[in-house]
Amino acid sequence: MSATGAAREPERIGIIMNGVTGRMGKNQHLLRSILAIRQDGGVTLPGGRRLLPDPILVGRDPAKLQALAAETGIQRLSDDLDACLADPDDAVYFDAVTTQLRPDNLRKAIAAGKHVYTEKPVASTLAEALDLAALADRAGVRTGVVQDKLYLPGLLKLKRLIDGGFFGRILSVRGEFGYWVFEGDWQPAQRPSWNYRREEGGGIILDMLPHWRYLLDHLFGEVRSVLCLGATHVPDRRDEHGAAYAATADDAAYALFELDGGIVAQINSSWTTRVYRDELVALQVDGTEGSAVAGLRSCKAQHRSATPKPVWNPDVPSPIDFFGGWQEVPDNQPFPNGFRAQWEAFLRHLASGAPFPHTLLEGAKGVQLAELAHASWRERRWVDVPELGR
Amino acid sequence: MSATGAAREPERIGIIMNGVTGRMGKNQHLLRSILAIRQDGGVTLPGGRRLLPDPILVGRDPAKLQALAAETGIQRLSDDLDACLADPDDAVYFDAVTTQLRPDNLRKAIAAGKHVYTEKPVASTLAEALDLAALADRAGVRTGVVQDKLYLPGLLKLKRLIDGGFFGRILSVRGEFGYWVFEGDWQPAQRPSWNYRREEGGGIILDMLPHWRYLLDHLFGEVRSVLCLGATHVPDRRDEHGAAYAATADDAAYALFELDGGIVAQINSSWTTRVYRDELVALQVDGTEGSAVAGLRSCKAQHRSATPKPVWNPDVPSPIDFFGGWQEVPDNQPFPNGFRAQWEAFLRHLASGAPFPHTLLEGAKGVQLAELAHASWRERRWVDVPELGR
Amino acid sequence: MSATGAAREPERIGIIMNGVTGRMGKNQHLLRSILAIRQDGGVTLPGGRRLLPDPILVGRDPAKLQALAAETGIQRLSDDLDACLADPDDAVYFDAVTTQLRPDNLRKAIAAGKHVYTEKPVASTLAEALDLAALADRAGVRTGVVQDKLYLPGLLKLKRLIDGGFFGRILSVRGEFGYWVFEGDWQPAQRPSWNYRREEGGGIILDMLPHWRYLLDHLFGEVRSVLCLGATHVPDRRDEHGAAYAATADDAAYALFELDGGIVAQINSSWTTRVYRDELVALQVDGTEGSAVAGLRSCKAQHRSATPKPVWNPDVPSPIDFFGGWQEVPDNQPFPNGFRAQWEAFLRHLASGAPFPHTLLEGAKGVQLAELAHASWRERRWVDVPELGR
Amino acid sequence: MSATGAAREPERIGIIMNGVTGRMGKNQHLLRSILAIRQDGGVTLPGGRRLLPDPILVGRDPAKLQALAAETGIQRLSDDLDACLADPDDAVYFDAVTTQLRPDNLRKAIAAGKHVYTEKPVASTLAEALDLAALADRAGVRTGVVQDKLYLPGLLKLKRLIDGGFFGRILSVRGEFGYWVFEGDWQPAQRPSWNYRREEGGGIILDMLPHWRYLLDHLFGEVRSVLCLGATHVPDRRDEHGAAYAATADDAAYALFELDGGIVAQINSSWTTRVYRDELVALQVDGTEGSAVAGLRSCKAQHRSATPKPVWNPDVPSPIDFFGGWQEVPDNQPFPNGFRAQWEAFLRHLASGAPFPHTLLEGAKGVQLAELAHASWRERRWVDVPELGR
Repeated sequence: MSATGAAREPERIGIIMNGVTGRMGKNQHLLRSILAIRQDGGVTLPGGRRLLPDPILVGRDPAKLQALAAETGIQRLSDDLDACLADPDDAVYFDAVTTQLRPDNLRKAIAAGKHVYTEKPVASTLAEALDLAALADRAGVRTGVVQDKLYLPGLLKLKRLIDGGFFGRILSVRGEFGYWVFEGDWQPAQRPSWNYRREEGGGIILDMLPHWRYLLDHLFGEVRSVLCLGATHVPDRRDEHGAAYAATADDAAYALFELDGGIVAQINSSWTTRVYRDELVALQVDGTEGSAVAGLRSCKAQHRSATPKPVWNPDVPSPIDFFGGWQEVPDNQPFPNGFRAQWEAFLRHLASGAPFPHTLLEGAKGVQLAELAHASWRERRWVDVPELGR
Repeated sequence: MSATGAAREPERIGIIMNGVTGRMGKNQHLLRSILAIRQDGGVTLPGGRRLLPDPILVGRDPAKLQALAAETGIQRLSDDLDACLADPDDAVYFDAVTTQLRPDNLRKAIAAGKHVYTEKPVASTLAEALDLAALADRAGVRTGVVQDKLYLPGLLKLKRLIDGGFFGRILSVRGEFGYWVFEGDWQPAQRPSWNYRREEGGGIILDMLPHWRYLLDHLFGEVRSVLCLGATHVPDRRDEHGAAYAATADDAAYALFELDGGIVAQINSSWTTRVYRDELVALQVDGTEGSAVAGLRSCKAQHRSATPKPVWNPDVPSPIDFFGGWQEVPDNQPFPNGFRAQWEAFLRHLASGAPFPHTLLEGAKGVQLAELAHASWRERRWVDVPELGR
Repeated sequence: MSATGAAREPERIGIIMNGVTGRMGKNQHLLRSILAIRQDGGVTLPGGRRLLPDPILVGRDPAKLQALAAETGIQRLSDDLDACLADPDDAVYFDAVTTQLRPDNLRKAIAAGKHVYTEKPVASTLAEALDLAALADRAGVRTGVVQDKLYLPGLLKLKRLIDGGFFGRILSVRGEFGYWVFEGDWQPAQRPSWNYRREEGGGIILDMLPHWRYLLDHLFGEVRSVLCLGATHVPDRRDEHGAAYAATADDAAYALFELDGGIVAQINSSWTTRVYRDELVALQVDGTEGSAVAGLRSCKAQHRSATPKPVWNPDVPSPIDFFGGWQEVPDNQPFPNGFRAQWEAFLRHLASGAPFPHTLLEGAKGVQLAELAHASWRERRWVDVPELGR
Repeated sequence: MSATGAAREPERIGIIMNGVTGRMGKNQHLLRSILAIRQDGGVTLPGGRRLLPDPILVGRDPAKLQALAAETGIQRLSDDLDACLADPDDAVYFDAVTTQLRPDNLRKAIAAGKHVYTEKPVASTLAEALDLAALADRAGVRTGVVQDKLYLPGLLKLKRLIDGGFFGRILSVRGEFGYWVFEGDWQPAQRPSWNYRREEGGGIILDMLPHWRYLLDHLFGEVRSVLCLGATHVPDRRDEHGAAYAATADDAAYALFELDGGIVAQINSSWTTRVYRDELVALQVDGTEGSAVAGLRSCKAQHRSATPKPVWNPDVPSPIDFFGGWQEVPDNQPFPNGFRAQWEAFLRHLASGAPFPHTLLEGAKGVQLAELAHASWRERRWVDVPELGR
């Protein structure tokens, strides 16, 4: 057989990865996204081109970096972020450090002309988040914010139901997120102690409201107003070293939202509840034609035609098996890792200008909702959500 | 065997029963309460005495009364309430007519010196409800309001857990009540159309908030403030005759409550949701030491020692069966019909002065909460709940 | 209580019931329809009136009639149909005798001015069926034909799905009806031997095609053309007395129908098949938005959203549980006996002119379809179905 | 240990494999047949000889070929079919390209003196298929057509029942094949768009009728006449790129067949039906002594002695569990991959003259049946199937 020419070499794109020694940063962003993409020969682009990400790992703890290098085979390591940003060969800055350090890092990266991709929340205040978006705009760099829950199989199947018109008119959304985070005395806590200190960027409102913002906006309709009640149900905890500390941040948030089209969303987020449901997240959507309950992986639906007609009768057990009337929505397709899927979309966006909706401005909307939820809690009233300029 | 004397004849108490031709009035109050008590020889009192209720059935439709007489064997029938109230031989007036007719009937009964026992809500406005309570006070008659849900097996077992200290400090209560009420076009509705007309006393806030008031007050702590969002999710319905009508009343209510002791309660009530849970009602209670989920009949608990420690990992299905970690609370006792149990308590209260907490003033608290929930919805803010004079 | 007047006496309607000593006639028409209506005080009419059917039982075997009288308490018996028809006090003639005797009986009843209600098929030929309809028209009497399968719970739920728009555009209907009728040698047959003799009105085409006609017409769209292949798969049978006989009638019919709107229906009817399905009848309906499988009592549905996406792979068992993806349609209402429901509708039609669609002309359509199916079988081609004049 | 002589080296047979970059060609013919045979040391022949197939892969896309070489280790690759056919060292030509390209390829291979083995359908018209068979005859080469479904475990067990006389006289065969092929708007389709374009060789009649021909001929009796109704139930679809297109080919076929011996076969094939049965294919066979339902892998049987005797009674649920009365036919043997089994039979046929029934003439019969089914649909009548000269 005559050779038809060597396969074209993939193009390289250098990525400064900051904060990937943590659990989520390492597992989701490094191993299952960037390294997995490399193993498959890079991201495919229109016209048969390919783009190969080449990461440099940045961190402050050399031992952790070395361990990561040994595990992954990645040789490019640094503990000097400024030096990395000064290197023109790496075009992208990725940030997975703590919320409090993030804005400064992003500012420096933008100033150095890097495209930026970042974990959420992008900042602790809306003003700061908007400032970052404006800086990036002026600098002409491209931006991306992680919005991974949109890619969960359960929510992708829910999206499929929405797109297929399953619900008729959507009336309401009920959400439960949470689980019991141990207090740390009797069994160690499964979340870091800074999550429970307001002064260190903790609190479930700041953690979860940004997720609810993009989920509600993308799946159902833009959030128009918010009512939120926060609580610190467990004020005394023990930290990573067994030392007692006072929890100053909210560990539960009870929120109501009004969405475009008159849809009502009621969502609880809590680290102080025990889970009596299929998965850690449950979103029930009710519409005129049908309802669904979506979690991380599963999505169950009940069409109007299968809806039972219960009648209240306290004298006998209900003859209806209420769980039995729901149908598992089949996968019908493979669901790739959501972090990787979003990384690939962002890399294609950089290489070929393909659309990418999850920008810094979108990230700012999440911060905005958290901020207004805090205001609602403080002022004990509904707060409207102003539109952010494009 | 030496006779210890002939069994003492039970004492008679005449009860004017108004409105027991309807489904709940007939089944719960007449058949399963008053007639069942009669078949068992009356209510036992201290000292071996017995009290035998002797009902007279009052109604406006003679055919329905005759049918009820034929079915039950009760011979005392009347279509003239005033004449009944004038008869000194009947000491009690019971009311199960519509909310709009109730206050006038109660007022006449109190004026005639009858003890009154009534379905809820006692009136459509707090002012009217308080007026009734004051009238009864001044007249020196005794009063009772139906608060049946306190007697549901699931909630009695929940009460047992509370009383036994199972929860440690109670942090929060989440409630879901509701089901899908058919629109009436394609399948007939299972609730009457007046429920969906505000001008006829309809609306789920007026229907359900009185229930939540006595449940929260009795089980967890007095309600101190309320935030409520109502909605009319399905504005177009068809009535009993297939005719289209506009629903003017709320068919869903999303409410938050702050209770004594800092407990947060979040409760949804809806006739426009499809049921994905064990029963039509579910109350989840979370405390520092344990949690429980109670329904009408079942109550499941998870102690702190059995609480799993989930970690968020979107890549694999959760290895934890979250339903599996809950333990059914055993009955350990028979649970009599709740309506009958409350009737027996009221009759003992009349005969021997045994305490009876479910007075007209307590009923007024339910109306108060519904009224303040409406205000909260209108004014888009939290509303405090003033204490009603003893 | 003052008497409000005696309840109005129900009006009487006399019904000559011919042929109710057979299994279906006795069980369905006499016991579960006419006698059950009598026990409930008659059929209710508009304005509170009631109509009480008063049957006279007609038959040729006095012993059977006496036994039926003893069992039912009905005293009016006769073995003289002509005398019965001459009595002006009985307004209705009901016929459940064999197909071959039916037309003569109906003709005499119409001539005597009786309203007629009859089992199907109304006659063995279309000409005869149309003649009966025309006679009734000219005589000004009202007519009814039993079309009981429209009232089966499974098909009522299927109708509900259709009316609710569940299917989107309906594409096709697949039907299987039948079971194994024993040959009579080794185990006695469970159908009478005349069913297998063409010359006595037997054959599954004449038995079942009338049912398919009204089901297809009422549920999906009018039948526009028919292709039918009959077969006598088991030509040698033994009769009620164990005597061998040659089956001259078809015991299986493989039919295709084209309906209004381009819907294709494919239906097999057979007394020579073994049942591998939920019930004796199965109708699968496929539409753009969903599918359903209905039987006598059950109806299962699969919405588009729950449809799995199988891929052909002969190397491994299918990972999909194809039965698991279907949802039982809940009853949501009581389903009364279908024969009684149709009797009540016919009696209301007689008493108050309420509409009644199942007339002799509709019955003639069933005979027409059977006749054209025979023609299609003979001529080995599709045959169009002409409209019958109103 | 005394050597009994060196194992004889296997003889080599060169096979030109054209079109094995597609899903079925690669998985079934290359990986699971030819490569699997090679891994097991070749096909055994009488006298202990062995025959080792040596494939050369032909295709037009060098990248796909290279990838296949990398995956399989096969080094012989070519994009020049003519050159391959000119090489006398490769004795066999195998074709798995599209139906439209196939006849030309086969003609060239026959002209070059190759034995030919090919996927079905062998051509789009009977004339072309017969021409190929005649050419091969004149050239003295041997021919084979893939008829894989005969080798499915479920159908092999059905064949075992037939050969064992289980059915007595076979009366009828009912077949259902199909599943829902998604329209491509809301979820991507799982079949290529050319399947739905008549002008590109699409349509379920041309795809499936050849399968039914060899199954019916081999299992039950030769097909003598056909009645077929085609339909394009879903006329609007979206292709691989999301573009809307008009489906011009049939997506459902409702067919009846008369077979030798008076057996009736009724078979639906559809890409527009939702599956309510055990497997994608179901064939129910009814005989005087017993019945069976066969799928791809499973085969269930009900003997006459286990046949229930149902009686129609609409008032109660059937007391019979109709699925319960069927017995799973045990495997009792391993069932090798059917494609490999047929390859082995063809290779033995070439090497030793062992009989091989699946010739080009047999393949032509499949094309013939599809062609006559189209005629039947067009002319709305039964069409007889002429015998093809040996």
